[in-house]
Amino acid sequence: MKDLPLSKVYQLLEPGPVVLLTTARKGRTNVMTMSWHMMVEFEPPQFACIVSSANFSFAALRTTGECVIAIPARKLAAKAVKVGNSSGRDIDKFAAFGLTKMPAERVAAPLIADCFANLECKVTDTRLVNKYNLFILEVLKAWIDPAQKNPRTIHHRGYGTFVVDGETITLKSRMR
Amino acid sequence: MKDLPLSKVYQLLEPGPVVLLTTARKGRTNVMTMSWHMMVEFEPPQFACIVSSANFSFAALRTTGECVIAIPARKLAAKAVKVGNSSGRDIDKFAAFGLTKMPAERVAAPLIADCFANLECKVTDTRLVNKYNLFILEVLKAWIDPAQKNPRTIHHRGYGTFVVDGETITLKSRMR
Repeated sequence: MKDLPLSKVYQLLEPGPVVLLTTARKGRTNVMTMSWHMMVEFEPPQFACIVSSANFSFAALRTTGECVIAIPARKLAAKAVKVGNSSGRDIDKFAAFGLTKMPAERVAAPLIADCFANLECKVTDTRLVNKYNLFILEVLKAWIDPAQKNPRTIHHRGYGTFVVDGETITLKSRMR
Repeated sequence: MKDLPLSKVYQLLEPGPVVLLTTARKGRTNVMTMSWHMMVEFEPPQFACIVSSANFSFAALRTTGECVIAIPARKLAAKAVKVGNSSGRDIDKFAAFGLTKMPAERVAAPLIADCFANLECKVTDTRLVNKYNLFILEVLKAWIDPAQKNPRTIHHRGYGTFVVDGETITLKSRMR
Protein backbone atom coordinates (compact mmCIF):
# COMPACT_ATOMS: atom_id res chain seq x y z
CA MET A 1 0.00 0.00 0.00
CA LYS A 2 1.29 3.41 -1.05
CA ASP A 3 0.35 6.89 0.13
CA LEU A 4 -2.30 8.60 -1.96
CA PRO A 5 -2.26 12.42 -1.75
CA LEU A 6 -5.39 13.69 0.02
CA SER A 7 -6.06 16.03 -2.91
CA LYS A 8 -6.88 12.97 -5.05
CA VAL A 9 -9.30 11.26 -2.69
CA TYR A 10 -12.41 12.82 -4.29
CA GLN A 11 -11.52 11.11 -7.58
CA LEU A 12 -12.13 7.76 -5.89
CA LEU A 13 -15.48 8.54 -4.24
CA GLU A 14 -17.07 10.99 -6.71
CA PRO A 15 -17.81 8.25 -9.29
CA GLY A 16 -20.07 6.52 -6.73
CA PRO A 17 -18.52 3.06 -6.25
CA VAL A 18 -19.70 0.48 -3.77
CA VAL A 19 -17.38 0.70 -0.76
CA LEU A 20 -16.71 -1.27 2.39
CA LEU A 21 -16.73 0.48 5.76
CA THR A 22 -14.70 -1.02 8.59
CA THR A 23 -14.92 -0.23 12.30
CA ALA A 24 -13.22 -1.35 15.50
CA ARG A 25 -14.86 -1.13 18.88
CA LYS A 26 -13.55 -2.70 22.07
CA GLY A 27 -11.20 -4.83 20.03
CA ARG A 28 -13.97 -6.16 17.78
CA THR A 29 -13.67 -5.31 14.11
CA ASN A 30 -16.50 -5.29 11.61
CA VAL A 31 -17.17 -4.43 7.98
CA MET A 32 -20.28 -3.37 6.06
CA THR A 33 -21.10 -2.63 2.43
CA MET A 34 -22.22 0.90 1.55
CA SER A 35 -23.32 2.84 -1.52
CA TRP A 36 -24.91 5.93 -0.03
CA HIS A 37 -21.99 8.34 0.15
CA MET A 38 -20.91 11.58 -1.56
CA MET A 39 -18.03 14.02 -1.49
CA VAL A 40 -18.59 17.24 0.48
CA GLU A 41 -15.23 19.04 0.18
CA PHE A 42 -12.09 18.56 -1.90
CA GLU A 43 -9.30 19.23 0.59
CA PRO A 44 -9.02 18.27 3.28
CA PRO A 45 -11.34 15.66 1.79
CA GLN A 46 -14.70 15.44 3.49
CA PHE A 47 -17.58 13.21 2.53
CA ALA A 48 -21.02 12.30 3.81
CA CYS A 49 -22.54 8.85 4.15
CA ILE A 50 -25.65 7.15 5.45
CA VAL A 51 -25.13 4.27 7.87
CA SER A 52 -28.47 2.86 8.92
CA SER A 53 -29.03 2.59 12.66
CA ALA A 54 -30.22 -0.96 11.88
CA ASN A 55 -26.63 -1.87 10.96
CA PHE A 56 -24.33 -3.32 13.63
CA SER A 57 -21.66 -0.86 12.39
CA PHE A 58 -23.78 2.15 13.34
CA ALA A 59 -23.00 2.06 17.07
CA ALA A 60 -19.30 1.43 16.43
CA LEU A 61 -19.09 4.37 14.02
CA ARG A 62 -21.03 6.66 16.31
CA THR A 63 -19.17 5.69 19.48
CA THR A 64 -15.62 5.59 18.15
CA GLY A 65 -16.03 8.35 15.53
CA GLU A 66 -13.67 6.45 13.23
CA CYS A 67 -13.77 4.12 10.26
CA VAL A 68 -11.92 3.03 7.16
CA ILE A 69 -13.49 3.22 3.71
CA ALA A 70 -12.04 0.45 1.54
CA ILE A 71 -12.83 0.35 -2.17
CA PRO A 72 -13.21 -3.07 -3.77
CA ALA A 73 -12.60 -3.77 -7.46
CA ARG A 74 -14.79 -6.03 -9.59
CA LYS A 75 -13.11 -9.22 -8.41
CA LEU A 76 -14.37 -8.58 -4.86
CA ALA A 77 -18.01 -8.07 -5.93
CA ALA A 78 -19.18 -11.44 -4.60
CA LYS A 79 -17.50 -10.80 -1.24
CA ALA A 80 -18.99 -7.30 -1.05
CA VAL A 81 -22.45 -8.82 -1.47
CA LYS A 82 -21.78 -11.42 1.23
CA VAL A 83 -20.61 -8.65 3.57
CA GLY A 84 -23.84 -6.75 2.80
CA ASN A 85 -26.01 -9.78 3.46
CA SER A 86 -24.65 -10.67 6.89
CA SER A 87 -24.26 -8.93 10.23
CA GLY A 88 -21.26 -8.48 12.51
CA ARG A 89 -23.65 -9.33 15.34
CA ASP A 90 -23.54 -12.94 14.18
CA ILE A 91 -20.16 -13.56 12.54
CA ASP A 92 -16.63 -12.29 12.05
CA LYS A 93 -17.03 -11.25 8.41
CA PHE A 94 -13.30 -10.85 7.77
CA ALA A 95 -12.71 -14.50 8.68
CA ALA A 96 -15.92 -15.78 7.13
CA PHE A 97 -15.31 -14.20 3.73
CA GLY A 98 -11.51 -14.17 3.61
CA LEU A 99 -10.88 -10.44 3.78
CA THR A 100 -7.39 -9.50 4.97
CA LYS A 101 -7.15 -6.89 7.72
CA MET A 102 -4.15 -4.58 7.97
CA PRO A 103 -3.47 -2.03 10.70
CA ALA A 104 -4.28 1.57 9.82
CA GLU A 105 -2.04 4.45 10.84
CA ARG A 106 -4.45 7.05 12.22
CA VAL A 107 -7.50 5.03 13.30
CA ALA A 108 -8.21 1.75 15.08
CA ALA A 109 -10.45 0.46 12.28
CA PRO A 110 -8.55 -1.90 9.95
CA LEU A 111 -7.57 -1.43 6.33
CA ILE A 112 -8.60 -4.19 3.91
CA ALA A 113 -5.53 -5.39 2.01
CA ASP A 114 -7.67 -6.93 -0.77
CA CYS A 115 -9.11 -3.51 -1.70
CA PHE A 116 -7.25 -1.24 -4.11
CA ALA A 117 -7.79 1.89 -1.99
CA ASN A 118 -8.25 2.54 1.72
CA LEU A 119 -9.24 5.80 3.41
CA GLU A 120 -8.72 6.37 7.14
CA CYS A 121 -11.55 8.60 8.38
CA LYS A 122 -12.88 10.40 11.42
CA VAL A 123 -16.43 11.62 11.96
CA THR A 124 -16.52 15.43 12.06
CA ASP A 125 -20.24 16.27 12.19
CA THR A 126 -23.13 14.31 13.65
CA ARG A 127 -25.89 16.94 13.43
CA LEU A 128 -27.90 14.93 10.92
CA VAL A 129 -27.29 11.50 12.44
CA ASN A 130 -30.45 11.38 14.53
CA LYS A 131 -32.76 12.32 11.70
CA TYR A 132 -31.11 10.72 8.65
CA ASN A 133 -28.26 8.49 9.93
CA LEU A 134 -26.09 10.96 7.98
CA PHE A 135 -22.46 11.28 9.05
CA ILE A 136 -19.91 13.84 7.83
CA LEU A 137 -16.36 12.51 7.82
CA GLU A 138 -12.88 13.72 7.02
CA VAL A 139 -10.26 11.56 5.35
CA LEU A 140 -7.06 11.69 7.42
CA LYS A 141 -4.91 9.38 5.34
CA ALA A 142 -5.34 7.55 2.04
CA TRP A 143 -3.68 4.44 0.64
CA ILE A 144 -3.60 2.97 -2.82
CA ASP A 145 -2.36 -0.46 -3.92
CA PRO A 146 -0.07 0.10 -6.92
CA ALA A 147 -0.26 -3.63 -7.76
CA GLN A 148 -3.93 -3.29 -8.76
CA LYS A 149 -3.71 -1.56 -12.14
CA ASN A 150 -6.80 0.17 -13.55
CA PRO A 151 -9.21 -1.36 -11.06
CA ARG A 152 -12.83 -1.46 -12.23
CA THR A 153 -15.24 -0.51 -9.47
CA ILE A 154 -18.84 -1.65 -9.09
CA HIS A 155 -21.96 0.50 -8.68
CA HIS A 156 -25.13 -0.86 -7.09
CA ARG A 157 -28.42 -0.58 -8.96
CA GLY A 158 -30.47 -2.40 -6.35
CA TYR A 159 -31.26 -6.02 -5.50
CA GLY A 160 -27.76 -7.36 -6.21
CA THR A 161 -27.47 -5.85 -9.69
CA PHE A 162 -24.26 -3.94 -10.26
CA VAL A 163 -22.84 -2.04 -13.17
CA VAL A 164 -19.10 -2.44 -13.63
CA ASP A 165 -16.87 0.39 -14.85
CA GLY A 166 -16.51 0.30 -18.64
CA GLU A 167 -14.84 2.64 -21.08
CA THR A 168 -13.00 5.74 -19.80
CA ILE A 169 -13.36 8.97 -21.77
CA THR A 170 -11.66 12.32 -21.31
CA LEU A 171 -13.30 15.53 -22.45
CA LYS A 172 -11.75 18.95 -22.40
CA SER A 173 -12.96 20.52 -19.17
CA ARG A 174 -12.21 23.23 -16.64
CA MET A 175 -13.95 21.25 -13.91
CA ARG A 176 -11.75 19.89 -11.13
CA MET B 1 -41.78 10.54 -20.73
CA LYS B 2 -43.44 7.91 -18.58
CA ASP B 3 -44.08 7.80 -14.82
CA LEU B 4 -41.39 6.04 -12.80
CA PRO B 5 -42.58 4.69 -9.42
CA LEU B 6 -40.96 6.62 -6.58
CA SER B 7 -39.83 3.32 -5.03
CA LYS B 8 -37.39 2.89 -7.94
CA VAL B 9 -35.75 6.31 -7.81
CA TYR B 10 -32.84 5.17 -5.61
CA GLN B 11 -31.80 2.73 -8.34
CA LEU B 12 -31.01 5.72 -10.57
CA LEU B 13 -28.99 7.78 -8.07
CA GLU B 14 -27.30 5.10 -5.96
CA PRO B 15 -24.81 4.14 -8.73
CA GLY B 16 -23.43 7.72 -8.63
CA PRO B 17 -23.99 9.08 -12.15
CA VAL B 18 -23.25 12.61 -13.26
CA VAL B 19 -26.56 14.49 -13.21
CA LEU B 20 -27.88 17.84 -14.37
CA LEU B 21 -29.73 20.09 -11.92
CA THR B 22 -32.23 22.59 -13.31
CA THR B 23 -33.77 25.56 -11.54
CA ALA B 24 -36.25 28.33 -12.36
CA ARG B 25 -36.25 31.66 -10.58
CA LYS B 26 -38.26 34.70 -11.63
CA GLY B 27 -38.87 33.11 -15.02
CA ARG B 28 -35.19 32.47 -15.64
CA THR B 29 -34.17 28.84 -15.99
CA ASN B 30 -30.71 27.43 -15.50
CA VAL B 31 -28.88 24.12 -15.44
CA MET B 32 -25.68 22.91 -13.77
CA THR B 33 -23.69 19.66 -13.74
CA MET B 34 -23.35 17.79 -10.45
CA SER B 35 -21.69 14.65 -9.13
CA TRP B 36 -21.80 15.15 -5.37
CA HIS B 37 -25.09 13.52 -4.41
CA MET B 38 -26.23 10.44 -2.50
CA MET B 39 -29.44 8.71 -1.53
CA VAL B 40 -30.68 9.33 2.03
CA GLU B 41 -33.97 7.39 2.16
CA PHE B 42 -35.71 4.88 -0.11
CA GLU B 43 -39.34 6.00 0.00
CA PRO B 44 -40.41 8.65 -0.21
CA PRO B 45 -37.05 9.05 -1.94
CA GLN B 46 -34.76 11.58 -0.30
CA PHE B 47 -31.25 12.44 -1.33
CA ALA B 48 -28.52 14.87 -0.38
CA CYS B 49 -26.38 16.97 -2.68
CA ILE B 50 -23.73 19.66 -2.57
CA VAL B 51 -24.36 22.78 -4.63
CA SER B 52 -21.50 25.22 -4.21
CA SER B 53 -22.47 28.73 -3.23
CA ALA B 54 -20.13 29.82 -6.04
CA ASN B 55 -22.61 28.36 -8.55
CA PHE B 56 -25.29 30.62 -10.04
CA SER B 57 -27.78 27.80 -9.32
CA PHE B 58 -27.18 28.02 -5.57
CA ALA B 59 -29.35 31.09 -4.96
CA ALA B 60 -32.12 29.75 -7.19
CA LEU B 61 -32.16 26.41 -5.37
CA ARG B 62 -32.05 28.03 -1.96
CA THR B 63 -34.68 30.67 -2.71
CA THR B 64 -37.20 28.56 -4.60
CA GLY B 65 -36.53 25.28 -2.74
CA GLU B 66 -37.12 23.39 -5.96
CA CYS B 67 -35.16 21.73 -8.75
CA VAL B 68 -35.19 18.95 -11.29
CA ILE B 69 -32.48 16.30 -11.40
CA ALA B 70 -32.06 15.11 -15.00
CA ILE B 71 -29.85 12.12 -15.75
CA PRO B 72 -27.90 12.19 -19.01
CA ALA B 73 -26.73 9.08 -20.85
CA ARG B 74 -23.31 8.72 -22.51
CA LYS B 75 -24.38 10.56 -25.66
CA LEU B 76 -24.90 13.75 -23.63
CA ALA B 77 -21.45 13.65 -21.98
CA ALA B 78 -20.03 16.48 -24.09
CA LYS B 79 -23.04 18.69 -23.32
CA ALA B 80 -22.81 17.87 -19.61
CA VAL B 81 -19.19 19.09 -19.64
CA LYS B 82 -20.15 22.30 -21.47
CA VAL B 83 -22.89 22.90 -18.89
CA GLY B 84 -20.33 22.39 -16.13
CA ASN B 85 -17.85 24.79 -17.72
CA SER B 86 -20.18 27.76 -18.12
CA SER B 87 -22.38 29.87 -15.87
CA GLY B 88 -26.02 30.83 -16.10
CA ARG B 89 -24.88 34.31 -15.10
CA ASP B 90 -23.49 34.70 -18.61
CA ILE B 91 -25.57 32.56 -20.95
CA ASP B 92 -28.80 30.63 -21.43
CA LYS B 93 -27.25 27.16 -21.33
CA PHE B 94 -30.34 25.40 -22.67
CA ALA B 95 -30.21 27.48 -25.84
CA ALA B 96 -26.42 27.54 -26.10
CA PHE B 97 -26.01 23.75 -25.86
CA GLY B 98 -29.27 22.58 -27.42
CA LEU B 99 -30.93 21.06 -24.37
CA THR B 100 -34.72 20.74 -24.67
CA LYS B 101 -36.78 22.04 -21.75
CA MET B 102 -40.14 20.49 -20.89
CA PRO B 103 -42.57 21.67 -18.21
CA ALA B 104 -42.51 19.68 -14.97
CA GLU B 105 -45.68 18.79 -13.08
CA ARG B 106 -44.88 19.65 -9.47
CA VAL B 107 -42.10 22.25 -9.71
CA ALA B 108 -41.30 25.32 -11.79
CA ALA B 109 -37.84 24.02 -12.77
CA PRO B 110 -37.87 22.40 -16.22
CA LEU B 111 -37.38 18.77 -17.18
CA ILE B 112 -34.73 18.06 -19.82
CA ALA B 113 -36.27 16.00 -22.61
CA ASP B 114 -32.85 14.79 -23.83
CA CYS B 115 -32.18 13.02 -20.51
CA PHE B 116 -33.45 9.46 -19.94
CA ALA B 117 -34.72 10.24 -16.43
CA ASN B 118 -36.02 13.36 -14.67
CA LEU B 119 -36.76 13.80 -10.96
CA GLU B 120 -38.90 16.68 -9.68
CA CYS B 121 -37.57 17.69 -6.26
CA LYS B 122 -38.19 20.00 -3.33
CA VAL B 123 -35.67 20.97 -0.68
CA THR B 124 -36.69 19.55 2.71
CA ASP B 125 -33.75 20.36 5.01
CA THR B 126 -31.29 23.24 4.88
CA ARG B 127 -29.54 22.77 8.24
CA LEU B 128 -26.19 21.95 6.63
CA VAL B 129 -26.39 24.49 3.80
CA ASN B 130 -24.45 27.25 5.53
CA LYS B 131 -21.55 25.05 6.55
CA TYR B 132 -21.29 22.57 3.65
CA ASN B 133 -23.66 23.77 0.90
CA LEU B 134 -25.45 20.48 1.63
CA PHE B 135 -29.13 20.25 0.72
CA ILE B 136 -31.56 17.45 1.59
CA LEU B 137 -34.29 17.00 -1.03
CA GLU B 138 -37.33 14.83 -1.59
CA VAL B 139 -38.29 13.50 -5.02
CA LEU B 140 -41.95 14.35 -5.64
CA LYS B 141 -42.31 12.86 -9.09
CA ALA B 142 -40.10 10.82 -11.40
CA TRP B 143 -40.09 10.38 -15.17
CA ILE B 144 -38.34 7.91 -17.42
CA ASP B 145 -37.97 7.96 -21.20
CA PRO B 146 -38.91 4.48 -22.45
CA ALA B 147 -37.36 5.28 -25.84
CA GLN B 148 -33.86 5.30 -24.32
CA LYS B 149 -33.16 1.60 -23.81
CA ASN B 150 -30.38 0.55 -21.39
CA PRO B 151 -28.87 4.03 -21.10
CA ARG B 152 -25.23 4.06 -20.03
CA THR B 153 -24.53 6.76 -17.48
CA ILE B 154 -21.24 8.55 -16.89
CA HIS B 155 -19.30 8.93 -13.63
CA HIS B 156 -16.82 11.76 -13.09
CA ARG B 157 -13.26 10.94 -12.01
CA GLY B 158 -12.05 14.52 -12.07
CA TYR B 159 -10.69 16.92 -14.69
CA GLY B 160 -13.05 15.86 -17.48
CA THR B 161 -12.31 12.15 -17.20
CA PHE B 162 -15.41 9.98 -17.00
CA VAL B 163 -15.99 6.28 -16.70
CA VAL B 164 -18.94 4.99 -18.69
CA ASP B 165 -21.17 2.16 -17.46
CA GLY B 166 -19.91 -1.20 -18.70
CA GLU B 167 -21.04 -4.74 -18.00
CA THR B 168 -24.02 -5.37 -15.71
CA ILE B 169 -23.80 -8.28 -13.26
CA THR B 170 -26.43 -9.68 -10.91
CA LEU B 171 -25.43 -11.51 -7.74
CA LYS B 172 -27.78 -13.27 -5.36
CA SER B 173 -28.47 -10.73 -2.63
CA ARG B 174 -30.91 -9.82 0.09
CA MET B 175 -29.95 -6.14 -0.19
CA ARG B 176 -32.63 -3.79 -1.51
